[in-house]
Amino acid sequence: MIDQRLLPHRFQIASFKTHRETANAIREMVIRGAGAIGVAGGYGMAQAAVEAKDLPPREFTVYLRHAAKLLKSTRPTAVSLFHAVDRCLVASSRGPMEKRVERIAEEADRIALEDLAASQAIGEHGSELIKDGCRILTHCNAGALAFIDYGTALSPVRFATKQGKRVFVYVDETRPRSQGAKLTAWELQQEGIPYALIVDNAAGYFMRRGEVDVVIVGADRIAANGDVANKIGTYEKAVLARENGVPFYVAAPMMTFDPDCPTGDDIVIEERSPDEVNWIWGEDEDGKLTRVRISAKDTPARNPSFDVTPAKYVTGIITEAGVLAPPYEESIRKALSEQRKGSPG
Amino acid sequence: MIDQRLLPHRFQIASFKTHRETANAIREMVIRGAGAIGVAGGYGMAQAAVEAKDLPPREFTVYLRHAAKLLKSTRPTAVSLFHAVDRCLVASSRGPMEKRVERIAEEADRIALEDLAASQAIGEHGSELIKDGCRILTHCNAGALAFIDYGTALSPVRFATKQGKRVFVYVDETRPRSQGAKLTAWELQQEGIPYALIVDNAAGYFMRRGEVDVVIVGADRIAANGDVANKIGTYEKAVLARENGVPFYVAAPMMTFDPDCPTGDDIVIEERSPDEVNWIWGEDEDGKLTRVRISAKDTPARNPSFDVTPAKYVTGIITEAGVLAPPYEESIRKALSEQRKGSPG
Repeated sequence: MIDQRLLPHRFQIASFKTHRETANAIREMVIRGAGAIGVAGGYGMAQAAVEAKDLPPREFTVYLRHAAKLLKSTRPTAVSLFHAVDRCLVASSRGPMEKRVERIAEEADRIALEDLAASQAIGEHGSELIKDGCRILTHCNAGALAFIDYGTALSPVRFATKQGKRVFVYVDETRPRSQGAKLTAWELQQEGIPYALIVDNAAGYFMRRGEVDVVIVGADRIAANGDVANKIGTYEKAVLARENGVPFYVAAPMMTFDPDCPTGDDIVIEERSPDEVNWIWGEDEDGKLTRVRISAKDTPARNPSFDVTPAKYVTGIITEAGVLAPPYEESIRKALSEQRKGSPG
Repeated sequence: MIDQRLLPHRFQIASFKTHRETANAIREMVIRGAGAIGVAGGYGMAQAAVEAKDLPPREFTVYLRHAAKLLKSTRPTAVSLFHAVDRCLVASSRGPMEKRVERIAEEADRIALEDLAASQAIGEHGSELIKDGCRILTHCNAGALAFIDYGTALSPVRFATKQGKRVFVYVDETRPRSQGAKLTAWELQQEGIPYALIVDNAAGYFMRRGEVDVVIVGADRIAANGDVANKIGTYEKAVLARENGVPFYVAAPMMTFDPDCPTGDDIVIEERSPDEVNWIWGEDEDGKLTRVRISAKDTPARNPSFDVTPAKYVTGIITEAGVLAPPYEESIRKALSEQRKGSPG
């Protein structure tokens, strides 16, 4: 795994030897992004299976259930993590005992391959929404780093560029962890796609001036009614987009849907440490990675990590099955039922 | 002057010996905030008058005009600076030659005293909008540091507290320069007023949850139709406030009105260096003031410093003459004409 906490200043590969180390990496955001933590959750379960492979059946099952609980406790909002862990748990309980480790590992591989395929399909469908000369605003990082290969919100941008369309991306900084500045800007720079970094406060300014043609963001969980949980600030951009007549799209694989969650108000919102608000990481003038406190000592802070964007602000949801339109209750249910019909298991 | 760039980490008084040094301090934001730079502009003119006091009348006038031009060029958006400098210029051209330096200094003093009185009256009028238990959201710093004594947006909060009302303030960080985190949070901490620092992205989250009762912000310039230019991000908060049924007030002295500016679209928006977006100042773990780069090298950034909030989002404008209500074209004109009648000069 790329250690995403060090980007764009250092490119460093971190490896995690046990499911506990993997869980910790998800909690500490070494690994982040809805897709990537789903895939990591699957491999974490495979690690647990290897760790427990010599235990008798009952202890093996208990060990795996504990591992599942630990992995799911790391980040409460992203549903892909829950789905991936549960799929591996189901895989462990089926078929002959002697092949259980193999089966879980295969399931984890399958999740990764599905994620990759979804990311490409999202790029293809989403690129149809991007015209030549299009100016796109994105929030947080739903790029290659958050997933495998193309990402979600950035995948349509990559496909449009490949198709020869000229694009320009406004990259929201995305405080408090500045994933826009640190990850999205870096990804676009690597690929030579034109962009400008802006502070989160400036997104509305550019929308009001008519300089943004479309907003595309990712999602951590989408409720049955189409309400979207995503990085804090997404709701602000959605309201501003509607106010300024700018289409607002969410790009997310079907794995992000949570049919058991009726509305966005049922989604648990993670509140992280006030330190993320008070301290900022970066590279100093001498190239040293360091953090600085921007506020006075003992400044109290509130730090909700996600927010919920009600479905009414969402123009469409770009999935691997196409672009879903409102009413979402219906289009999501239909897409999920078609997916179940088409899936092998 | 308090060097505001060093707060909250250092409390340091900076002095400026010439009008050129004062102009530079305004440009570099050692002095900032609509009121404070207006007052500084006045004293900058007084400094120029002292510098030129031995010149013959014509050269004296030329010298003062140059000083006025320099001082006004430092920050293009705040109108109080223009007003203060122009008032001193007018004062210099009236009455006997031998008293011109004195007259300009008196005018600068008068501007400072008016600013102080306005700040108190704004606090009194504004405190009526704050009920016991009120949760207030503010953006940037329109406190004592931005003005003299009480400030504008924070003045009603201070008055309400003095009246024994319990209040809670959500302080927007206000990237890129984080005046909320650095200045507003520090001011509230000094006075023991309960608050929490939040990232700019979280303001909408708390409004949607019904945890914000009123938004109060300052202003750098208000057009004849009530459109408000203020720190970047103000427009975002205004749109979110209206969307969530939260009253949105602008607290500003009458000096902030620019009757020569028909609408907000006529206000020049200052775009500052991309460095403010890419680099962040703070205090490191060892207590050393340092800046860190949050993005990759050569990251292009756009940095508009202000935005315009159309009058339709503004519930009321809290001035020293009372709380003005829409339609603003009328209420502003009336308030300005009553002020002219009441003023001695």
